[in-house]
Amino acid sequence: MSQWIYFFDLCGTAVFALTGAMAAGKYRMDAFGVLVLAAVTAVGGGSIRDALLGATPVFWIRDPNYILVILATTAAFLVLVRKPHRLPNKTLPIADALGLALFTIIGAEKALLLGTSGIVAVIMGLLTGVGGGIIRDLLCRQVPMVLRTEIYATASILGGIGYTLSLQAGMDSMAALAIAMLSTLTIRLSAIRWHLSLPAFDLKTKRV
Amino acid sequence: MSQWIYFFDLCGTAVFALTGAMAAGKYRMDAFGVLVLAAVTAVGGGSIRDALLGATPVFWIRDPNYILVILATTAAFLVLVRKPHRLPNKTLPIADALGLALFTIIGAEKALLLGTSGIVAVIMGLLTGVGGGIIRDLLCRQVPMVLRTEIYATASILGGIGYTLSLQAGMDSMAALAIAMLSTLTIRLSAIRWHLSLPAFDLKTKRV
Amino acid sequence: MSQWIYFFDLCGTAVFALTGAMAAGKYRMDAFGVLVLAAVTAVGGGSIRDALLGATPVFWIRDPNYILVILATTAAFLVLVRKPHRLPNKTLPIADALGLALFTIIGAEKALLLGTSGIVAVIMGLLTGVGGGIIRDLLCRQVPMVLRTEIYATASILGGIGYTLSLQAGMDSMAALAIAMLSTLTIRLSAIRWHLSLPAFDLKTKRV
Repeated sequence: MSQWIYFFDLCGTAVFALTGAMAAGKYRMDAFGVLVLAAVTAVGGGSIRDALLGATPVFWIRDPNYILVILATTAAFLVLVRKPHRLPNKTLPIADALGLALFTIIGAEKALLLGTSGIVAVIMGLLTGVGGGIIRDLLCRQVPMVLRTEIYATASILGGIGYTLSLQAGMDSMAALAIAMLSTLTIRLSAIRWHLSLPAFDLKTKRV
Repeated sequence: MSQWIYFFDLCGTAVFALTGAMAAGKYRMDAFGVLVLAAVTAVGGGSIRDALLGATPVFWIRDPNYILVILATTAAFLVLVRKPHRLPNKTLPIADALGLALFTIIGAEKALLLGTSGIVAVIMGLLTGVGGGIIRDLLCRQVPMVLRTEIYATASILGGIGYTLSLQAGMDSMAALAIAMLSTLTIRLSAIRWHLSLPAFDLKTKRV
Repeated sequence: MSQWIYFFDLCGTAVFALTGAMAAGKYRMDAFGVLVLAAVTAVGGGSIRDALLGATPVFWIRDPNYILVILATTAAFLVLVRKPHRLPNKTLPIADALGLALFTIIGAEKALLLGTSGIVAVIMGLLTGVGGGIIRDLLCRQVPMVLRTEIYATASILGGIGYTLSLQAGMDSMAALAIAMLSTLTIRLSAIRWHLSLPAFDLKTKRV
């Protein structure tokens, strides 16, 4: 089981590194600059999580594989993706949704292993899922996805709740993982596909 | 005494959660997005403080009450505040001033309890007071209050110095708390009310 | 040797505090606000480094000299630099390059002392070198230098690699320091002087 978690963690790292590299495209950055943006997107959320939990040195300092995955992903992207304007417009949001789902589970799992309460596990899942993307968007001076996109934090929070409750109900780890993965991905991809949104809270237009 | 500090800490958490939720109003966010912005504003500064001090896991991971206060404040805000356009324009700055005063004291107090020097206590007070608001403003792409507003860092720093010096002079904890609270609030609210400012440092206009 | 590293660390702190104070000039901030921006620029990168490494409380909490250097630098700047519009345009980038070179070495050195691998040491050098400037630029709503400037991360990464490889090859510490210092400064200053750049990665214009 824990090997699956580890494998998914490396997959999520690659996916988020990719979204970081793609976001870098709008600046005239050299290869090292693209690498920096890929790296902060991939490990930013998990680093904040580990620093808050006191699980230091943080994960990628102890395990070089994360750095290698980021290096390989960025290199492959720089070499192979030469016509990114041919990529469909939805590629970045969909890759981001996958990373969000994977990292939500990883974050919740790590918190539970350290013995936190369920609510803290959900928060750590959210933080791991959205933290790297927030840093990426801040550096690129975009409004962070978690603010500008309907049903974004929602997808991560519900996935984290699904994962935590499934485990606390005594469910098998793989089943809990599948439930959480499907919850987050279904909610987020549906929101992308059909522009779904929860009732928005809007100071300017809201009336009684 | 420490119960009072704890009570004020929860009050400051509610106040800053409120400023975060209010700042969220300009984006079409759903309830979970508003909750995220309320939470980072409320616990952002204290989380940075604890991570730098090595007081990990950070405070809200160990004590679920902070999360509950944020959940309750955000829920109350979403349900009750339906005509925020009727709130006076100064509500956000005044709530922010109250949070600044409360968190400055909390931050300095926690640092002193861990045995830091007085100057570090003042810095930790400032960091706790302004950290959450800076994250809130960055996420909302506002120039952070600490930069755009005259006598903002000043109010926190002088309040922190007042608190630390009062304690080091052997004063009663409640008296030190009252002095610090009054200092920060008086300075900050006066600056808001009468647009007071210290001599500004301005590269473009300054002359000998 | 370690005394030299310490001396250079304080020099780098002064240099980055200066770039922070200079960046503050465009806002109508009072002296305390300038001090805050000087401080986050000077110790931001190292604080993130220490938090990630688990070397807490972070360096400036344990050693008051860093705070004193920042206080003295900011005071000197506010008192002495009264006609900054007379400073050549290149002053800020050149001071920034010096800070980048110094902090890259400090960060790599601290990581190696804690027993990390060489690749983590290079990353910690980069983080120490660019972290404070990124926070400065984010607070001032500038696109961070590491994104907008060609050969910026590159200069730090190559300096860090030079330092780490030199030490691992059994070279004298001072020699390794000189090599790293010269590498970063030469690369960065050449890029500034002759507008050099590595092939930029640009999603919009890149063709096969």
